[in-house]
Amino acid sequence: MSPGPVVTPIELSPGELAQVRFTADGLVAAIAQDRAGGQVLMLGWMNEATLRETLETGRMVYWSRSRQQRWAKGDTSGNRQWVREAFYDCDGDVLLFLVEQEGEGACHTGSFSCFYRRFGGDGPGATTATHEGHEPGFTDDQQ
Amino acid sequence: MSPGPVVTPIELSPGELAQVRFTADGLVAAIAQDRAGGQVLMLGWMNEATLRETLETGRMVYWSRSRQQRWAKGDTSGNRQWVREAFYDCDGDVLLFLVEQEGEGACHTGSFSCFYRRFGGDGPGATTATHEGHEPGFTDDQQ
Repeated sequence: MSPGPVVTPIELSPGELAQVRFTADGLVAAIAQDRAGGQVLMLGWMNEATLRETLETGRMVYWSRSRQQRWAKGDTSGNRQWVREAFYDCDGDVLLFLVEQEGEGACHTGSFSCFYRRFGGDGPGATTATHEGHEPGFTDDQQ
Repeated sequence: MSPGPVVTPIELSPGELAQVRFTADGLVAAIAQDRAGGQVLMLGWMNEATLRETLETGRMVYWSRSRQQRWAKGDTSGNRQWVREAFYDCDGDVLLFLVEQEGEGACHTGSFSCFYRRFGGDGPGATTATHEGHEPGFTDDQQ
């Protein structure tokens, strides 16, 4: 058997939690950044419960706004995100997680990062990172 | 005279703009990442006008939700952000800008990044990046 993934639980203090400002809907924006390469992978949302679960389990667990339910990233795709460090911004309404991305990447399109499309990419000679398998109309939180 | 800052205008095509999904309030989340070091600097919001201005002028211009007005980052502080590359995510509701951060940093607290506070930082022996001059109660879009 191969060893399981390395997890890095982070202890959330009441003082830290008090710094987090949730929206009226009870959500806070969460940016996932690849710790090794520095790429910004995606932005999702968390409520207090999934933030707690993320830090306790060391694995990114979001709140799906479209499905209105807990969304453990990678349950379906296998592309889980393992938390290594976590930060909150100066006014507490955005979180930043440095993660180890499992599998092929964070994006359901197959791209490593969800930010694979470049502005100015339509111009002549411009470099693009367009993913051929891109399909319009998907939501921001498919698994 | 010293030369002015290098600007990198990006041509926004109608097709690209059509991919951007604004909220009911007409806003889209915009992540600024330091191009050189890879640090995520901040998350702000843009409306269509400030997105256009950002790409045309090559300088980050946000929409202040608290003040409900255009917010050209660095007009007061001098800590302007010069756009080098810009991306939109798979469902078009988050933008990522790779910028050259001018001055001491992106955060009004004096930190280079707004994400200078670490979860788990209250624990014994934990590494913290706490900024001593931090003052609570500020908004996310002070200049």
